[in-house]
Amino acid sequence: MNIEMIRAAAARAQGNVRRTPMLWSPGLDAIAGRRVYVKAECLQLTGSFKARGGWAAVSALDDAQRAAGVIAFSSGNHAQGVALAARAHGAPCVIIMPSDAPAVKAANTRALGAEIVFYDRLTEDRDEIGARISAERGLTLVKPFDDPQVIAGQGTTGLEIAEDAAALGIAQADVLVCCGGGGLTAGIALALEAEAPGLRARPVEPAGFDDVARSLASGSIHRNPRLAGSICDAIITPAPGQLTFPIMLRLCGPGLDVTDSECLAAMRAAFAHLRIVLEPGGAAALAAALFHPETVDGDAVIAVATGGNVDPAMFMRAIRD
Amino acid sequence: MNIEMIRAAAARAQGNVRRTPMLWSPGLDAIAGRRVYVKAECLQLTGSFKARGGWAAVSALDDAQRAAGVIAFSSGNHAQGVALAARAHGAPCVIIMPSDAPAVKAANTRALGAEIVFYDRLTEDRDEIGARISAERGLTLVKPFDDPQVIAGQGTTGLEIAEDAAALGIAQADVLVCCGGGGLTAGIALALEAEAPGLRARPVEPAGFDDVARSLASGSIHRNPRLAGSICDAIITPAPGQLTFPIMLRLCGPGLDVTDSECLAAMRAAFAHLRIVLEPGGAAALAAALFHPETVDGDAVIAVATGGNVDPAMFMRAIRD
Repeated sequence: MNIEMIRAAAARAQGNVRRTPMLWSPGLDAIAGRRVYVKAECLQLTGSFKARGGWAAVSALDDAQRAAGVIAFSSGNHAQGVALAARAHGAPCVIIMPSDAPAVKAANTRALGAEIVFYDRLTEDRDEIGARISAERGLTLVKPFDDPQVIAGQGTTGLEIAEDAAALGIAQADVLVCCGGGGLTAGIALALEAEAPGLRARPVEPAGFDDVARSLASGSIHRNPRLAGSICDAIITPAPGQLTFPIMLRLCGPGLDVTDSECLAAMRAAFAHLRIVLEPGGAAALAAALFHPETVDGDAVIAVATGGNVDPAMFMRAIRD
Repeated sequence: MNIEMIRAAAARAQGNVRRTPMLWSPGLDAIAGRRVYVKAECLQLTGSFKARGGWAAVSALDDAQRAAGVIAFSSGNHAQGVALAARAHGAPCVIIMPSDAPAVKAANTRALGAEIVFYDRLTEDRDEIGARISAERGLTLVKPFDDPQVIAGQGTTGLEIAEDAAALGIAQADVLVCCGGGGLTAGIALALEAEAPGLRARPVEPAGFDDVARSLASGSIHRNPRLAGSICDAIITPAPGQLTFPIMLRLCGPGLDVTDSECLAAMRAAFAHLRIVLEPGGAAALAAALFHPETVDGDAVIAVATGGNVDPAMFMRAIRD
């Protein structure tokens, strides 16, 4: 796992994955008390950064693996990323999805040609289900975060952040990243280490689901006590990964956490000031930048807005007066 | 009024106005039956393309004009564009705004440091009010569309469309533009004439407010019979301009019109498939691309999504199931 894998993933993604803009607005700056740059991965193909990791993983398969197909387990964003890449590469695709995933994510995944198998998030083990089906059909499992190619693909986000920060004259800043298992956070951290060493990645998690922050603070992997009870479905995972955690421990700053209501307020602020659509878990980093400015150093902060796949009812809850 | 003015406006805007992305999604393509590219001007600073014209006009003033200040009349988007540019140039700014303008537009304009004077859209003449106040205070009037610098600024959108279309290999396509007085449509048409002659600008208006389409069809300027009764507040204007109309007549294809409910459906589609926020008038061109595909030729269509300044209640009306 190194910067060369990220650069190679960026080369394979060229023209297939979108280069997303870094947005800002006087209105957000006024809330945070400093310049807030938002890396708008909600504008990525499939509506989240997961299209990067999906493309990196599927494009790295050999011909036989591609012909047999791939399988992924995901609450929806990784599913869409893998499904899009699989379709583009002519590979069959099975998605293992929790039965409480947002309807829009299931519908969009199906529209991308994938076969969906639902499971119960509270009583069933998605790892076991995924391993069994992939063995039966000879599918290659594309893990959601603890996979070198997936981390490399997500890390292409960090290459773009480094490039944009250089163009904007930002030498030092915290880069806040909505964090589940740590694939994006670790990938960005590796890219920044090589390309923008003054920028520091920091994971942001839902309060009560701060396994990564606690693991970073203690130096060893801690698990979340539960896996349901937050609206931030995209970033609720059992624990940091075996691959992602050592990278984050070496390179990341301390973790932050935000409440569900802060995520909803960040969604509303992004609606009003940036005219982008964020899902709750995709707004966590922006929520930290806006509502916990005292935990961040520097004149500017960069928040990665990781996704925008949200049902209308949840979005209305966020923007309602 | 020529391409050199547009190129000069682009040079002055460099680093001050955002280069917006051209987005697409498999979901939109499926609705329209062809590839739909969306030039996302809702992601522009101030939430609409009007930041371009505002910057072009204010940056072209001499020192004495800048010190005295500027005045503009606008339902909100032009107001914010002029206010942002005025603040950046240290120029006082007065905005004449209809009393029924969306609250978010008035609030954002005020947040940009402008003084707002409200008028009644049905009973008062904004031109007369604007001329009187600008004479009293020595302000320079920045008209919303019928001004060479404003047309040049809006035309920078067309330079970007031409550049992106070349990169995407699009040699021939209709470019659908949400159209009020025609500043953006005329500016884009001039830019495309010079840089991408196979692309053709076409105005899109709300049904019942199709003054530009009727004027283009007859070859002379027609007025709208009324100025209220559509949710597309941003693109309701009395008639095409004296400067914009001859340009559109020479260069544009036939106009299209869309209903309010089609604009709401386009807002919902943009929410679900592109994760961007559009206002009703900013969704008109996308509505035409999605719901009137038979009126467009070619494998691909480009729709300019002109703005995203919308009150939560109106946005909820669009995305509600």
